[in-house]
Amino acid sequence: MPDKILDDISHRRYNPLRGSWLLVSPHRTKRPWQGQQEGPGVNKLPEYDPKCYLCPRNPRAQGDNNPDYKETFVFVNDYSAVKEVQQDYKPESEDSSDDLSSLLLRAEGVKGKCFVLTFSPKHHLTLADMPAKETLPIIETWTRIYAAHLAPTNPLAEIAAKSDLMGREAPPESLVPAPTQQLRYMQIFENKGAAMGCSNPHPHCQIWTTSTLPEEPAAEAVQMAKYRAEHGGRHLLQDYVKLEMEKGERIVYQNAFFLVVCPWWAVWPFEVMIIAKRHVRALVDLTEQERFYFAEAIQEVTRRYDNLFETSFPYSSGIHQAPLDGTDEEVENSYFHMHFYPPLLRSATVRKFLVGYELLAEPQRDITPEQAAARLRDCGGELYRKNLQ
Amino acid sequence: MPDKILDDISHRRYNPLRGSWLLVSPHRTKRPWQGQQEGPGVNKLPEYDPKCYLCPRNPRAQGDNNPDYKETFVFVNDYSAVKEVQQDYKPESEDSSDDLSSLLLRAEGVKGKCFVLTFSPKHHLTLADMPAKETLPIIETWTRIYAAHLAPTNPLAEIAAKSDLMGREAPPESLVPAPTQQLRYMQIFENKGAAMGCSNPHPHCQIWTTSTLPEEPAAEAVQMAKYRAEHGGRHLLQDYVKLEMEKGERIVYQNAFFLVVCPWWAVWPFEVMIIAKRHVRALVDLTEQERFYFAEAIQEVTRRYDNLFETSFPYSSGIHQAPLDGTDEEVENSYFHMHFYPPLLRSATVRKFLVGYELLAEPQRDITPEQAAARLRDCGGELYRKNLQ
Ligand SMILES: O=P(O)(O)O[C@H]1O[C@H](CO)[C@@H](O)[C@H](O)[C@H]1O
Ligand SMILES: O=P(O)(O)O[C@H]1O[C@H](CO)[C@@H](O)[C@H](O)[C@H]1O
Repeated sequence: MPDKILDDISHRRYNPLRGSWLLVSPHRTKRPWQGQQEGPGVNKLPEYDPKCYLCPRNPRAQGDNNPDYKETFVFVNDYSAVKEVQQDYKPESEDSSDDLSSLLLRAEGVKGKCFVLTFSPKHHLTLADMPAKETLPIIETWTRIYAAHLAPTNPLAEIAAKSDLMGREAPPESLVPAPTQQLRYMQIFENKGAAMGCSNPHPHCQIWTTSTLPEEPAAEAVQMAKYRAEHGGRHLLQDYVKLEMEKGERIVYQNAFFLVVCPWWAVWPFEVMIIAKRHVRALVDLTEQERFYFAEAIQEVTRRYDNLFETSFPYSSGIHQAPLDGTDEEVENSYFHMHFYPPLLRSATVRKFLVGYELLAEPQRDITPEQAAARLRDCGGELYRKNLQ
Repeated sequence: MPDKILDDISHRRYNPLRGSWLLVSPHRTKRPWQGQQEGPGVNKLPEYDPKCYLCPRNPRAQGDNNPDYKETFVFVNDYSAVKEVQQDYKPESEDSSDDLSSLLLRAEGVKGKCFVLTFSPKHHLTLADMPAKETLPIIETWTRIYAAHLAPTNPLAEIAAKSDLMGREAPPESLVPAPTQQLRYMQIFENKGAAMGCSNPHPHCQIWTTSTLPEEPAAEAVQMAKYRAEHGGRHLLQDYVKLEMEKGERIVYQNAFFLVVCPWWAVWPFEVMIIAKRHVRALVDLTEQERFYFAEAIQEVTRRYDNLFETSFPYSSGIHQAPLDGTDEEVENSYFHMHFYPPLLRSATVRKFLVGYELLAEPQRDITPEQAAARLRDCGGELYRKNLQ
């Protein structure tokens, strides 16, 4: 038997075959399901849905009522994948001579906190419908939550303390973790659309903060550190931005501070990255002006996506930035960027499946990133449904 | 501009951020789509469908007619992701001083061959409906195709030549690659069900054979070699089999030659692995008796899957084994096993989405592998629909 405790606590497991870790959250099956069951996307949504647990004033799963919020609203996920308080885990094999178990059945405990953040009180909106100035409060809230979770020893903490945002509105008490609960990494991500497992169309993202550094940012950190070491301290993504600006063919959009490209190595058909043009380590490094330009970049991506197939384009997106807690070098090596992974390939109903060959052998894509970029460049006009609404 | 040739040939691209490669097949968008469009699964299928391009005697996309086959039928995919003949690719940056390009826009050509293999002439069957003795011809065909593609220098080639199978029926001419086309790796995989991107319910798998070693088997090879080097030549998976047989709690089924477990590190809710109990490097190492036991293990997995939620259970599955071409050590380090990645989580209609957090941060699962194994152990009875048909 593995420690019975693993039935009840979130933890990671190591795959010695792949050399990788994964997160296990046994208590999580209790969460409700409001999502699509492999059907077509919802079309005409009301501005307010009395049954939606994200709309203002409505009750949530655990009984709390949402406030009558006007811009964004953040709360601790009622069905979090990780928790702040749980028993500690000590592998049994450490105190035994059970050698193979310690090699092949490795685990470690994971603590953390999960938030849900609504983008708007309006149930029927998406980021594509919201002009940059309406997206700005979302970026400000992301920045405040990130700042509130930084380790005091993180060089970014000092910058955060001086930020113009911090004075304006203190983050709600519940968002500030107790000092004993210093966490390692914060992942901000959005699942949009039934095809990407979104269980509620009300515009929102999630923020999962863990005591461990997850696989993807960890893998990126290794590669970015290696690049810097081998190339005289230059940042991989800064070099990449420079190169893509010279080449031009994978650029979807750019403004003074951000470049949007279909990366050379895109896996998803219309995958894009928003990359800071200067070396920015995390949200707190962005100036007020840069935050606005970031909002604009997000608006340009999401509107083009919707215009491409004249549909509410599904995707998963997320921000990679400096860890909350880490060495000065780790923080300095970080380079702020945002990924968008959208599944649609040919139309509003035909998606790319990353399945058999992709899972067993290697990701496979059908159109080139250059072709994808050209198509996205061409759909920069007004949101297709603007005059239909 | 990247070399224009990359619009037309299959190639790999390197992601310097993740340190990983992916396959690009620009010409592949021309293939037809018969799959589900995010709807519910098909239920009552006919034994013969005059519109199915996999049924006996029917015409295929390129005009050929299928033979009136009785067991399995193999043909070269009419819309292959890789091709045997294409122009060679030389990165432009090699002959220029364009330094960043050679670092950040890396590519290499990939040649190869893709086959489709039907499991049965009957349109309405699945592996779950087929007893082990009907699955055996599939395993024999896999073995013959694998054997026919082995490099003459591969130590397995000699074993293959002596195999009881080789005498019985020579593989069709089209399956034997010209000697100049020695390929590196063969990936056998099945996508079953609309949820896993399967575009035709007629029971079949695919076989993609490439000039390069894909990411997943390459990553496994590195880990397995490391383990052997550090543990006195013992095989990682042989130690794992031993350990799981001692523990018992993740075992779904076993027979004399194969162990079926929900691995400790499973990502998909009901993920399982079929692992050879003795060190087997590839299909050609299996004796006639072992092939039958392998067929039985596949039958036990697929029947239990269908019984679990009383539905035709979707999954992607595939075999990992020795490369077709590789060093003696690489071949010797290989350890035959089969993965099953099924998406269903709670019922026939509610699946696990590996999306936002999983793509951006780390795979996350909800039930433990031990719970999944216990449930699969308990559904070993007759196929639920056996007496309903
Ligand atoms: O080859 P098929 O069946 O048309 O396509 C299916 O399997 C392929 C290999 O896993 C995937 O790349 C496709 O996205 C999927 O739809
Ligand atoms: O948290 P939600 O929205 O219920 O769940 C969604 O996002 C999670 C994080 O990517 C996934 O693990 C779930 O499979 C998905 O359905």
